[in-house]
Amino acid sequence: MSYRILLLPGDGIGPEIVAEGEKLLAAVAEKYALEFTFSRGLLGGCAIDATGTPLPDETLALARDADAVLLGAVGGAKWDVGPAHLRPERGLLGIRKALGLYANLRPALLFPELAGASTLKPEVVAGLDIVIIRELTGGIYFGEPRGVGTLPDGSREGRNTMVYSEAEIERIGRTGFDIARRRGHRLCSVDKANVLETSQLWREVMIRLGSEYPDVDLSHMYVDNAAMQLVRAPKQFDVVVTENLFGDILSDCAAMLTGSIGMLPSASLNQTGFGMYEPVHGSAPDIAGQQKANPLATLLSVAMLLRYSLGEAAAADGVENAVAAVLRQGLRTADIAVAGEPVLSTVAMGDAVVAAL
Amino acid sequence: MSYRILLLPGDGIGPEIVAEGEKLLAAVAEKYALEFTFSRGLLGGCAIDATGTPLPDETLALARDADAVLLGAVGGAKWDVGPAHLRPERGLLGIRKALGLYANLRPALLFPELAGASTLKPEVVAGLDIVIIRELTGGIYFGEPRGVGTLPDGSREGRNTMVYSEAEIERIGRTGFDIARRRGHRLCSVDKANVLETSQLWREVMIRLGSEYPDVDLSHMYVDNAAMQLVRAPKQFDVVVTENLFGDILSDCAAMLTGSIGMLPSASLNQTGFGMYEPVHGSAPDIAGQQKANPLATLLSVAMLLRYSLGEAAAADGVENAVAAVLRQGLRTADIAVAGEPVLSTVAMGDAVVAAL
Ligand SMILES: CC(C)[C@H](C(=O)O)[C@@H](O)C(=O)O
Ligand SMILES: CC(C)[C@H](C(=O)O)[C@@H](O)C(=O)O
Repeated sequence: MSYRILLLPGDGIGPEIVAEGEKLLAAVAEKYALEFTFSRGLLGGCAIDATGTPLPDETLALARDADAVLLGAVGGAKWDVGPAHLRPERGLLGIRKALGLYANLRPALLFPELAGASTLKPEVVAGLDIVIIRELTGGIYFGEPRGVGTLPDGSREGRNTMVYSEAEIERIGRTGFDIARRRGHRLCSVDKANVLETSQLWREVMIRLGSEYPDVDLSHMYVDNAAMQLVRAPKQFDVVVTENLFGDILSDCAAMLTGSIGMLPSASLNQTGFGMYEPVHGSAPDIAGQQKANPLATLLSVAMLLRYSLGEAAAADGVENAVAAVLRQGLRTADIAVAGEPVLSTVAMGDAVVAAL
Repeated sequence: MSYRILLLPGDGIGPEIVAEGEKLLAAVAEKYALEFTFSRGLLGGCAIDATGTPLPDETLALARDADAVLLGAVGGAKWDVGPAHLRPERGLLGIRKALGLYANLRPALLFPELAGASTLKPEVVAGLDIVIIRELTGGIYFGEPRGVGTLPDGSREGRNTMVYSEAEIERIGRTGFDIARRRGHRLCSVDKANVLETSQLWREVMIRLGSEYPDVDLSHMYVDNAAMQLVRAPKQFDVVVTENLFGDILSDCAAMLTGSIGMLPSASLNQTGFGMYEPVHGSAPDIAGQQKANPLATLLSVAMLLRYSLGEAAAADGVENAVAAVLRQGLRTADIAVAGEPVLSTVAMGDAVVAAL
């Protein structure tokens, strides 16, 4: 099989970690008799510098031409001074929306070797393995009307709109049920139905869908309680499904429970299984270009890419097993090393995973 | 001095814990030569049962007539079946809005004796002492338009509006700066300015206000990062100020960091210093009427009432010291006891605090 992969290195440490992703895909090609052809595009700050816009049309065209996209990270203080529509994040939001990547899958998985890195007690997080599914193209991120207007007295007012159609809720709801089916068959839908009408509709649709998935145990939780429960007893969850803003907050909270966000991948999928894959950590401009970044979140994103967009489950398993193996061997980058432990560079860690594969 | 206090016992364990609050206020009156006259009103489920509405006009009139309100808790599964506008929570939202209680102060304080109750490692949370200030009468909780409408194709769409005027932001911002001044002089304003225009205006106003408070160190953080940082290193914060929905989520997360939400009070204040005080924990219907509830969050809410609405700082200190003293004596209710430790009833714990006072 031959696949076209668009690489979007982005900003900061992005180029270094995406280079490891490309190297790993080359190794996967060899081992699993696949073929990858790579294209390369600009997104975020680097795109602003080169073209004046965070999401050039050419990048979108390249993405539409690809089977999957591997993204590094975007952003950096350097671009935080421009007007809002010329910030790196706008590129990220724009590509999600333009490609219809409505389903954001964010696993929070704690590797046993790294349990000590969590700020939570080992017994609370050992064995943590949850997935947060965040709706990514709707809600208050994109709702209209929005903006800052002027009131009759001359002072200003800011306004944003959280809006969800039944169809939007249903399609992300189905993603939730489908993923729960492949895992522990438990789905927790998070909303704020005691206050928001948007959430009342959300809950109604989830309950209706639930009758089509009798094998999945559906529960509901208010978002404030979900934030509490993630801290109190995160292992109570299997799959969580929620709207865009709640998912932004809760998935970052869940990620931090593991203590090592340098390890966490993500997938953003559309209806056809096409997707963009990126590590959860940011562009870390402070360590950019120093070969200090942990490439494992990117390599685990490659595994998700193989699994969800290409349907190459064996190759995905292979990559995940290789990452687990290097951790068992005691190999560590700076962010996951305990004081005094020897530390690998970005390239050396990438090489180790390729070797383990 | 003579003060009028409205007691709103509410539902579940509410009556039991508010009874302890009343008992403590009587003891405070004696010790500090104050006088309290108590009135009593209905809010939430009990109000629905008695009057058909969660917030009877009479309750509002009583509140307007009082110097401060002490609330137990509202809600319970029993009332979760009715239509949305007839739920106990509506009473809570309604009284906040009607009385203009825009400033919600939620301390997350970890008593050294209870550090073990946290799911976080002791070194991460020992000495935790932060205050989350949540805007309580604006934003998406109250914004219009809102509701569930029908689309041209007959399917439905839910809609809510997050809206903040400059004036609303400024007044809660000032609360933030004022409280930071009384504490560690550090204020972190939490927003989502990289996505929401509401947050861009929020941040602009905070920065402008900051120049009036040069002695307060103002920082800004995105809400998703704030959720991470609360888990990663909560002691980095002193005072956090944020809008209604973000504050709902983050304050519950912060509360759970302490591991003992049975210990956490809250205050909801208006412009004049009038306020409603309530424990952060809910109505716990499962243990209602059994004298198992921990009254300490309510007693600490009494301390906040004395401090913020009545200006009786000495009495407030006295109550807080009394609570600290009973904890040092090893006295525990069931929720904060370690397995095997003797356990006090609600009344016995209330008596112990009165005795310590
Ligand atoms: C950068 C920002 C716009 C983005 C978001 O809020 O979606 C980020 O926080 C994320 O979670 O991918
Ligand atoms: C009960 C609910 C409406 C309320 C809120 O969301 O404000 C509660 O969660 C709180 O924080 O006081």
